[in-house]
Amino acid sequence: MDPESRRKTLRMLSNGLYVMTSRNGERCGAATVTWVSQASFRPPLLMAAVRPDSNVFACLRVSGAAAVHVLGKNQEELARRFFAPTRTDDGGINGEPFRDGVTGAPILRGAPAYVECRVRQILDGLGDHALVVLEVVGAECREQVTPLTIAESPWEYGG
Amino acid sequence: MDPESRRKTLRMLSNGLYVMTSRNGERCGAATVTWVSQASFRPPLLMAAVRPDSNVFACLRVSGAAAVHVLGKNQEELARRFFAPTRTDDGGINGEPFRDGVTGAPILRGAPAYVECRVRQILDGLGDHALVVLEVVGAECREQVTPLTIAESPWEYGG
Repeated sequence: MDPESRRKTLRMLSNGLYVMTSRNGERCGAATVTWVSQASFRPPLLMAAVRPDSNVFACLRVSGAAAVHVLGKNQEELARRFFAPTRTDDGGINGEPFRDGVTGAPILRGAPAYVECRVRQILDGLGDHALVVLEVVGAECREQVTPLTIAESPWEYGG
Repeated sequence: MDPESRRKTLRMLSNGLYVMTSRNGERCGAATVTWVSQASFRPPLLMAAVRPDSNVFACLRVSGAAAVHVLGKNQEELARRFFAPTRTDDGGINGEPFRDGVTGAPILRGAPAYVECRVRQILDGLGDHALVVLEVVGAECREQVTPLTIAESPWEYGG
């Protein structure tokens, strides 16, 4: 296989940019993720590929719950904040105010929409990301926006 | 959970439109799919949610191989052809000419880029789509294009 052909082709896959959050007791995890897709209508499932060394993965693996926040196309700065390791203080998670969701997952006040999910299955060890299957158990759409996509962002993640 | 909030939020997830093909002996399967994402860099993995009653799923489950074709943003008509059940004749699959890939999966001549994959794992029974984890073993990028996305198409698939 020609690695350059593979890289170019995989970078033509279309993905959004989301912030995934989770909490395990006092520990919060939050990260910007892009490898996310719906995986079923009934029940409503998502599949997400998450770095196994991330705080958000450590939290969701134990708590069994996570939230996935949609970002608007003008919210690059919010996405950028969650590239950094998770740091929680009185100002929020990585400086973003939040409240507790019904699953316990932190809900970012600045996101236009989110789903709250229960972890249904984790496939770990196939590759360098863990594959997490999530069932949507709650949702709030505060505003219908044009979503931020990886293609229109300054970043690449794929190949 | 408010179903309308869930639907609106899930429809803000960003996805591309792809044609997935597979072959089991003389039987070919091909379908337009949108719930696809990369899932690992090393090894390069994709995750795809595929209707379990489709021809392409029937073929890839047995043969263990499939191809995923990227479409350009002007290729709505090609995507539309693979909404219909698979029909193979001298003119191709659903009228699209193809050749055999190294895995045996049909490679559409009209697609600007594709990856050929081996099935690594199938999760069936969690929802109304089967979750297929694919390892990329071949790729060809004939042309770097702006990819067709579900958001810019006339169609919706999510919620």
